Amino acid sequence: MSIIACSSNQSGDHPIEYIFHPRSIAIVGISADLPKLWIKRLYLESLIKSKYPGQVYLVNPKGGEMDGLPIYRSVRDIPGPVDHVVISVPAVHTPKIMEECRDIGVKVAHVFSSGYAETGEPDRVELQNRLVAIARQANIRIIGPNCLGIFYPRGRIGLSPDLSMEPGSVGFLCQSGGNVTFMARHAAARGLRFSKIVSYGNACDINECDLLDYFASDPETKVIAAYIEGAHDGLRLLKVLKNAAAAKPVIVFKGGFSPDGLRAAASHTGSLAGADTVWDGLLKQVGAIRVYSIEEMVDMLVALLRVKPPKGMNVCAIGHGGGASVMATDELSRAGFRLTPIPENIRSELKEFVDLANSMLRNPLDLGTGFVPDAMELIKNMGSRPPAEFLREIAASGGMPRAKRLNALLKQWPGLDLVVYHHGFDISPLPVERSRAPGGPGSILLAANACELPKALVLHSMGNDDSFAASIDVRGLAADLGLPLFLSMRGAAVALRKLVDYSMAYPERLVGLDVPPNKVGTDLGCSQELRH
Amino acid sequence: MSIIACSSNQSGDHPIEYIFHPRSIAIVGISADLPKLWIKRLYLESLIKSKYPGQVYLVNPKGGEMDGLPIYRSVRDIPGPVDHVVISVPAVHTPKIMEECRDIGVKVAHVFSSGYAETGEPDRVELQNRLVAIARQANIRIIGPNCLGIFYPRGRIGLSPDLSMEPGSVGFLCQSGGNVTFMARHAAARGLRFSKIVSYGNACDINECDLLDYFASDPETKVIAAYIEGAHDGLRLLKVLKNAAAAKPVIVFKGGFSPDGLRAAASHTGSLAGADTVWDGLLKQVGAIRVYSIEEMVDMLVALLRVKPPKGMNVCAIGHGGGASVMATDELSRAGFRLTPIPENIRSELKEFVDLANSMLRNPLDLGTGFVPDAMELIKNMGSRPPAEFLREIAASGGMPRAKRLNALLKQWPGLDLVVYHHGFDISPLPVERSRAPGGPGSILLAANACELPKALVLHSMGNDDSFAASIDVRGLAADLGLPLFLSMRGAAVALRKLVDYSMAYPERLVGLDVPPNKVGTDLGCSQELRH
Repeated sequence: MSIIACSSNQSGDHPIEYIFHPRSIAIVGISADLPKLWIKRLYLESLIKSKYPGQVYLVNPKGGEMDGLPIYRSVRDIPGPVDHVVISVPAVHTPKIMEECRDIGVKVAHVFSSGYAETGEPDRVELQNRLVAIARQANIRIIGPNCLGIFYPRGRIGLSPDLSMEPGSVGFLCQSGGNVTFMARHAAARGLRFSKIVSYGNACDINECDLLDYFASDPETKVIAAYIEGAHDGLRLLKVLKNAAAAKPVIVFKGGFSPDGLRAAASHTGSLAGADTVWDGLLKQVGAIRVYSIEEMVDMLVALLRVKPPKGMNVCAIGHGGGASVMATDELSRAGFRLTPIPENIRSELKEFVDLANSMLRNPLDLGTGFVPDAMELIKNMGSRPPAEFLREIAASGGMPRAKRLNALLKQWPGLDLVVYHHGFDISPLPVERSRAPGGPGSILLAANACELPKALVLHSMGNDDSFAASIDVRGLAADLGLPLFLSMRGAAVALRKLVDYSMAYPERLVGLDVPPNKVGTDLGCSQELRH
Repeated sequence: MSIIACSSNQSGDHPIEYIFHPRSIAIVGISADLPKLWIKRLYLESLIKSKYPGQVYLVNPKGGEMDGLPIYRSVRDIPGPVDHVVISVPAVHTPKIMEECRDIGVKVAHVFSSGYAETGEPDRVELQNRLVAIARQANIRIIGPNCLGIFYPRGRIGLSPDLSMEPGSVGFLCQSGGNVTFMARHAAARGLRFSKIVSYGNACDINECDLLDYFASDPETKVIAAYIEGAHDGLRLLKVLKNAAAAKPVIVFKGGFSPDGLRAAASHTGSLAGADTVWDGLLKQVGAIRVYSIEEMVDMLVALLRVKPPKGMNVCAIGHGGGASVMATDELSRAGFRLTPIPENIRSELKEFVDLANSMLRNPLDLGTGFVPDAMELIKNMGSRPPAEFLREIAASGGMPRAKRLNALLKQWPGLDLVVYHHGFDISPLPVERSRAPGGPGSILLAANACELPKALVLHSMGNDDSFAASIDVRGLAADLGLPLFLSMRGAAVALRKLVDYSMAYPERLVGLDVPPNKVGTDLGCSQELRH
């Protein structure tokens, strides 16, 4: 057994800091039988893959062994101290397990099992209460029941083998297990990483207040994201949320905001969801950022962590396609941005390398065939090399000539606050092919990368499997380079508008974010977040 | 040269019917040089691939040959009559080409080239006016300039080699070329097909009024979709739109609805876009359905052509995942639907095969592990067979036992108007693998397929490349089976709400749509639209 030494934050003295630093983890209810096999994959395989440095114990009354580890028949049979237990047995058996945990001095019980208060059945509510009573008596903290538990990359506590173990700065508390994996995977695909995630389910003990309070003081967490279905203590929530929101940006997705949704939340996690107007007032009062979907939450995180806050609402939209440019204008415009015309001196310089035909030399700026020479050169020079690797090198060397010229012109535009580069994969009338995609989209990515103004990059309009596949390399590289990558113009516009509002209302809260410089150019693009 | 015999609608006597039935097509400005090579791919290769039965002529002053066809040096050198010309030469040369077209009796000139009125430059406006003057004199109709032209699957007139040539019932007029390909590809991926598409650009001659008027009387078109940036004759537009909307459902996406968007539209297609309030009033007055993106337009088409209109707002949401179920409820609820609790007798029958734990047996209904036995059986029986082929056979044989039982229970629910089945690919904490995806998502698809009530199927939450890839087979099969497939719950909720409103306000307009029966079961699922 080894003491965890990999965490940079052992010094924190928050009352629940220790839940992230177990010396050992026992998985109770592990089994090779279907469908319980997925508990093995979810926890045992994740811990092995994440190289969890503590001791892992397996428990099942049937005994035996798995992956070279003995399976103990009871928690009581485990030969060493157990800090953390993952309990995955039918709910009715969990009080007995909790008693065993009490007897051997367990500190944290994560109850994966469901079938408690959320069912609304009186005997199931009682079952949950019994768990809490046993745990209180023994000073055991419960995470759950009905949840996925803890994901802590720095502490090498994995959760699901395919989540990135690269540590980041987003702390996520989430009352739903499914939203943890959707959020973690989607955020990773957009280049974001997490400090810690806690999926806390019914919150019979550790709840949203504990976690908001924890993340507020956690130095590893720079932005807090929360999916919350219900409040367990309104007054305390107001207090901790106010404190957390004052310390760093807090994004809240309140699940169950509609009347029927309130009832659904009760049925999902046994939550008393609270009237939506109360939540809305609360979030506004403390200055938390409210979103209405996981996608919006990720968009908002990208805006906060990847976009240098624009000083005003003047935006230039630059991309390929007339219809796409008109639609981009509408989306940005209805989010409150202004697309003022390109100054005449810049326009006349643009005419030197962008043909009037098939382009829009105003604002929006449709490059038409303006970048085609760059794109053709990219395709030619790439040869058979992997597109992302090739484009990454071009990015490191400063990018393509037309993009450089365009970005130099943009810097001369007085009062321009933000540049939104965009490329729609399906706007090309020719079949979209992965091998050629780095040309057009690649030249937009390189231009966005080299842009020194506050900026965003929208790679979108993937309407079918072919165009989605064609976008893989360029999207992946944008995420890897730490570019502010959005996958829809509407999503980008909404998040960017919220960023402007937030940065004006609470400039001091953005200070610690270390948004990457707007030109990542020569450092091979590894953003500060990714370099941690 | 052969006379077109493949069109089912030669009898139409609409003044522009003939533009869809050219006996021959000349492509002027074809070239093997980059970047003009894509004109070859876009038009010549499409016509070859679509087996266009008329004569194809190629024109370029340099002469030579291409794909076994001679390249004539001038339009005047073409040895036979030419009905339709695609003009792709620099704008300044187009008046000369138009004069040649006049001289040899061309009927329709599609001007692909851009660089006319849309640039806002006086000499370019004049250039466009000259084109029109020559064409009027010679009784030539112009499509464009600055557009992709005609796509007519029944007439085997292809446009871009990867668009499906299977004829359908959606008529689409589109002022943007990029939106044609995005729309055509995305709609196809959702199982929809087109009667005709006309990309009409600057609309210097044939405009939105001509096309709306045409589609209104076109028996091959059951629903009209329109992306319009500007009106060219307000009074006529009101008249034709009123007439078209009375004849069949008309969906309008007005590009350039924001103040800056108005200016963008002028810059894109030289359109006088008109105040948004005027458009909004106009569309409401005639009972057209307004949407705000291509994705919304496709969602609305799926709702109209694939969902039997619900008689009221009572919906049951059925799927996998607690958080997903809460979010589904919120989205449906804020679109105006009601999720009333499952009647107690149905709930108690549900308890017989859906475990209380890890599920929500109310409404929303989170199946939890309820379909797991079905899913495991599917995976086991599928073996190494292609997932879509295997699932298609199971669908044809009536589906899986639990789904049958669930659907039988739903039929006993008094006042239930709509069932929304949903599956989020990334809600599974285990890595999403394509080979296993047919299990969970497949069992949801089969349940939706067998449901006899008005229904929708939402396959969503594909947060990264892996989950997107894992969804390919099930999404593809849902589209092929003619199921009402949506890719976001919000999109589904908005479109379904509009469907309910529309069907209540204008029930007579839905009569001709032939929405597939809600159970496609034993006919191998080929929807009526796809059987055309």
